[in-house]
Amino acid sequence: VARRIQNETELIQTYLAPLTRAAPGAFGLNDDAALIAPEPGTDLVLSTDPVVAGVHFFETDRADDIAWKAIAVNVSDLVAKGAEPLAYTLALAFPAAPEAAWMAEFARGLASAQAAFGCHLIGGDTDRTSGPLSIGVTAIGVLPRGSFVPRHGAKAGDHVFVTGTLGDSALGLALHRDPSLYGSALTDGDRSFLLGRYLRPSPRLAMTSVLRAYASAALDVSDGLAKDLARLAGGRGIRVSLAALPLSPPARAALAANPRVIGAAISGGDDYEVLFAVAPDQLADFEKAVALAAVATTRLGVLNGPPGVVFIDSEGQQVEIAATGYDHFGTA
Amino acid sequence: VARRIQNETELIQTYLAPLTRAAPGAFGLNDDAALIAPEPGTDLVLSTDPVVAGVHFFETDRADDIAWKAIAVNVSDLVAKGAEPLAYTLALAFPAAPEAAWMAEFARGLASAQAAFGCHLIGGDTDRTSGPLSIGVTAIGVLPRGSFVPRHGAKAGDHVFVTGTLGDSALGLALHRDPSLYGSALTDGDRSFLLGRYLRPSPRLAMTSVLRAYASAALDVSDGLAKDLARLAGGRGIRVSLAALPLSPPARAALAANPRVIGAAISGGDDYEVLFAVAPDQLADFEKAVALAAVATTRLGVLNGPPGVVFIDSEGQQVEIAATGYDHFGTA
Repeated sequence: VARRIQNETELIQTYLAPLTRAAPGAFGLNDDAALIAPEPGTDLVLSTDPVVAGVHFFETDRADDIAWKAIAVNVSDLVAKGAEPLAYTLALAFPAAPEAAWMAEFARGLASAQAAFGCHLIGGDTDRTSGPLSIGVTAIGVLPRGSFVPRHGAKAGDHVFVTGTLGDSALGLALHRDPSLYGSALTDGDRSFLLGRYLRPSPRLAMTSVLRAYASAALDVSDGLAKDLARLAGGRGIRVSLAALPLSPPARAALAANPRVIGAAISGGDDYEVLFAVAPDQLADFEKAVALAAVATTRLGVLNGPPGVVFIDSEGQQVEIAATGYDHFGTA
Repeated sequence: VARRIQNETELIQTYLAPLTRAAPGAFGLNDDAALIAPEPGTDLVLSTDPVVAGVHFFETDRADDIAWKAIAVNVSDLVAKGAEPLAYTLALAFPAAPEAAWMAEFARGLASAQAAFGCHLIGGDTDRTSGPLSIGVTAIGVLPRGSFVPRHGAKAGDHVFVTGTLGDSALGLALHRDPSLYGSALTDGDRSFLLGRYLRPSPRLAMTSVLRAYASAALDVSDGLAKDLARLAGGRGIRVSLAALPLSPPARAALAANPRVIGAAISGGDDYEVLFAVAPDQLADFEKAVALAAVATTRLGVLNGPPGVVFIDSEGQQVEIAATGYDHFGTA
């Protein structure tokens, strides 16, 4: 029989406290609150995005993947604002005392995320719940005073870019549910890549200084490109050619098998890429900086004209977008 | 039929965004992250204590009381560290789209707590869950750099104090479950007072500057006096006379009806009073400052000798404490 953890002290001291070693303000999780001493001339940025079993991940997912993603989705918000990840708090609610092996794997996932993103656990809480496993993360980032990149700062004429590729995660989720999806159109390597993009999103940390310097507005693509692009555009419009959407080779392979796969890139969500705008007079300097940062970015279009996000197919025809993004409470 | 909220936009813009009006860094909840610009010479303090229906409150409790308590339990942690409440993030997970009337009452409870504690909503998240209603709060407080009051800072010879009265909330919870408890020993006013102490705890904000100036260590009493006193004492011991425990008149009335009521004061928990230590050479100045702050405090004893918290009855006999505090995962 797998051993379950015995009490809160074991849960906190054995598995979580070691994650605070480099953060003196965590007091080894032996205090009721955490301390942050901001550097002079900096601002702090906070993101709060909890993940819940059955909503944001599968209960049967590996514990280290669950832990990674819980941190990554919050770090992604910080990165889109130009902030460097600094610390996070963790509120865990368990339906039953977790198994020791599960908890050890979960802690390893947190440690991997900390190492990858450069942040540390500084506080939190553990609870029992009658509901599913819930992981509440509040991530704290830091940036030079006044350099926060807002969601609503783009102007008419600004060029819109997105990092990386779109739709991989939505395809990974579909493959998670049905591993045989798209049959021989995908190799084992393709499947593994797409699943990895769903399970272990990689926020574009290399973009933070570029965004601070050149982006007039930014947000991460979490609810699908169509919905998040409408947010970035605000009162302006943008026309995006489907041919311009950045797709990974595995996503292109899936698209070749089923043309509807383009919907994953448009409204799939969970991409955790950065969508941002750059003013025309900044473009030349931006291009140099982004080349140095070595992050692939794709220009989607220019903000202009009346409000609305329009996707255009290869014949210049407007594409109808069925789903415009995820809403936890929407009835549509 | 009661109207339910239609979508996330209504939930956020109608009920939550108005709570951010005085906090420019909240961006009206229209951004993915919140911004805090710390004043030079200050440190920030973070507390993360979620509350879950069926664990920390009853689903049938009034929405404004639920909201108040979710903020208050976190503010209580800040206060015990000497920090002034500044802001909070809110992660709401609903089993179903809430009714508009419920959500309006919940927002009124948040507004009351904000006014009472001097803090503002700056960000958060709303989700669906297959579990019970869950309210994740991360509260942020501020204090002069270097003035954080740690949990583990007390020395042998320090005097230990507690604010207010103990056991009221545990009695209020018992009355919440059985309104006829203690029969004619309690008046309607007594019942109302005790229930109020359970539903609407009042963190001792007036103590923050006194704690910063004079407390060598502090924490709030949330898991019961016995458990939290052992935490404060660390490697030292303390003997506490039951006669010294501060009890409200309604708690004294309940105690007269049932001597076991003393257990509520010792291990009931949910008190949200501040337990703190003061060095002997600070006592005179502390007494003056606390009188100015107009917060009732009671001296429980002096830290000394071997580790251990011992309660002594009126005949000088050691009292056996059955329950030593709440553990979400303990099997004892």
